[in-house]
Amino acid sequence: MSDTAAQLQPHPVRNSVFLRACRNESVPHTPVWFMRQAGRSLPEYRRVREGIPMLESCMKPELVKEITLQPVRRHKVDAAILFSDIVVPLKAIGLDVDIKPGIGPVIANPIRTKEDLRQLRTLEPDDVPYISQAVTMLVEELGATPLIGFAGAPFTVASYLIEGGPSRTYERTKAMMFGEPELWSHLLERLADITATFLRIQIEAGASAIQVFDSWAGTLAPRDYRQSVMPASQTIFRSVAQYDVPRIHFGVGSGELLGPMGEAGADVVGVDWRVPLDEAARRVPPHTALQGNLDPALLFAPTHVLHQEADGVLNAAHAAGDRGHIFNLGHGVPPTVDPDVLTRLVAHVHETSTRSAT
Amino acid sequence: MSDTAAQLQPHPVRNSVFLRACRNESVPHTPVWFMRQAGRSLPEYRRVREGIPMLESCMKPELVKEITLQPVRRHKVDAAILFSDIVVPLKAIGLDVDIKPGIGPVIANPIRTKEDLRQLRTLEPDDVPYISQAVTMLVEELGATPLIGFAGAPFTVASYLIEGGPSRTYERTKAMMFGEPELWSHLLERLADITATFLRIQIEAGASAIQVFDSWAGTLAPRDYRQSVMPASQTIFRSVAQYDVPRIHFGVGSGELLGPMGEAGADVVGVDWRVPLDEAARRVPPHTALQGNLDPALLFAPTHVLHQEADGVLNAAHAAGDRGHIFNLGHGVPPTVDPDVLTRLVAHVHETSTRSAT
Repeated sequence: MSDTAAQLQPHPVRNSVFLRACRNESVPHTPVWFMRQAGRSLPEYRRVREGIPMLESCMKPELVKEITLQPVRRHKVDAAILFSDIVVPLKAIGLDVDIKPGIGPVIANPIRTKEDLRQLRTLEPDDVPYISQAVTMLVEELGATPLIGFAGAPFTVASYLIEGGPSRTYERTKAMMFGEPELWSHLLERLADITATFLRIQIEAGASAIQVFDSWAGTLAPRDYRQSVMPASQTIFRSVAQYDVPRIHFGVGSGELLGPMGEAGADVVGVDWRVPLDEAARRVPPHTALQGNLDPALLFAPTHVLHQEADGVLNAAHAAGDRGHIFNLGHGVPPTVDPDVLTRLVAHVHETSTRSAT
Repeated sequence: MSDTAAQLQPHPVRNSVFLRACRNESVPHTPVWFMRQAGRSLPEYRRVREGIPMLESCMKPELVKEITLQPVRRHKVDAAILFSDIVVPLKAIGLDVDIKPGIGPVIANPIRTKEDLRQLRTLEPDDVPYISQAVTMLVEELGATPLIGFAGAPFTVASYLIEGGPSRTYERTKAMMFGEPELWSHLLERLADITATFLRIQIEAGASAIQVFDSWAGTLAPRDYRQSVMPASQTIFRSVAQYDVPRIHFGVGSGELLGPMGEAGADVVGVDWRVPLDEAARRVPPHTALQGNLDPALLFAPTHVLHQEADGVLNAAHAAGDRGHIFNLGHGVPPTVDPDVLTRLVAHVHETSTRSAT
């Protein structure tokens, strides 16, 4: 094939249903993937993870590859997402962080003063060789299926660093945000820098989209988000803009933040189940695609209810007008879900959306 | 005073700033109270509660009176709220429920089948003599300060009954809601009946407003709330409509539900800090007053930040137009807050809103 022909012939990944939807292009059916599709809901995941602590498993490229591929094989989802954790880059620069089963990330020395910031040095590609190795292998193996790069957003990562672990009220986090704005913005800038590097490494190794998880930003009032959080997230999105890969921005309970989360530089905004997608469309900037947004609790409902509610999501996305839509849950796959339910849901969404596309 | 004169002379409680604001009438300053104002943030509360389990303390009328009055004395708030818990009426009809410190309500035999419903018999006034006793004493003592009656809404109470305790994902609750709609609606109807009785007892003993806490309804998509939850809450509001006392309806993270929570029959909708009040005004039905909505985490911020953000709430309420506004937090007072911060905040809101009212 000549160079020109190669250029005219769209790359199979670039022309995948998932990436087309991210770019608001027409699609033969709605693409589907699930947050935390690679995880404890799968017996094959539990098998390969046996005896290996979470963070360690994120640092073994062969294992990351296998775990990332499992849901693609099983469910026929339209995208893979790199199996990782938002604290992986922190661990990589030497922070004493662990993921405790049933709890989440736990930080040995929480960051609460200017001196504590010293723990956060710059991330270098050599700190995470396993990431580029895993991505390179994955892209090779995945063929036409796109791989989504993975990172946590500064606010959500900062909340763990400041609280020392998961929180329900984010009291210490907000106390710093409101009370020590200079320290706060230094912390968020450092995290933005680390995150941007973490994502660039994934993109340069072949990831063809990225998702930034600001899972807990929904705890903030819009004004506070805009003033104290959005600038750092903006830095991240800006720093990967040159690559021309779709950038997804996701949070839970972030209905009031959909506008600014889009404005931060996202091509796609992830929406949880609380805001119908047609309403979400009114809140995000023009030309922003939408991802979501089935309540994960519906995975425990009878099939006819689940599929009916999935149709409701597709209809709301349709009512949202000329935007791309990537079908997903409004949050991660619950570990106790029967994986067959997910496989059937993928097939149902594909089939239903094919019918309405033709 | 003749009967006619007594009618012309407004009752001091009826003419209180709090009740006037609930009815969208003009006020000399914005009224203030705080959810969980009677609680662990106060040393005098910790003193009188010492050695007395939570639920037991809700059943001692003298103690309920004392605890309810404490924040009125200390902070000069514009309303008292009956010290109670949403599971008190369940305990009163014989359910094996306890409130575990640091956890919350724990149900010994969760309700998951039709047979389990038998645990929920009708509530009779004789089941809760301490409630009418406490309210009667309180009203006497409070003079011109209104007392708000207290109850949990069917969804939030059902979530504890089904899960067996607090939950983050409400998986079992939603599984019943989506999968066993008949059982679900029977459960919610029974809870609505119990709650309505619980509130009527308080109103007949002298409570001059009520607040229904549907704290966790915000976990539901609006369509699911309307279909599966709103009817039962409507039953409650309808059943106390005859008394002509303002009805407040509150939830956390319920930005998408403000419309239906108002339509359920509320005169006042409580808003958490995620939705600015001028935006909330666009979502609730006309003539609905608003309550809220300072982020409780701000109580840990420096005074100038706290007061500036409180002014932001007052400004947003002003921008919301001709509606009553009751200043409150977006959720309960955190137990670790310095109570002096709350006292100063009440004074600040009174002073600032007096200036802008004149």
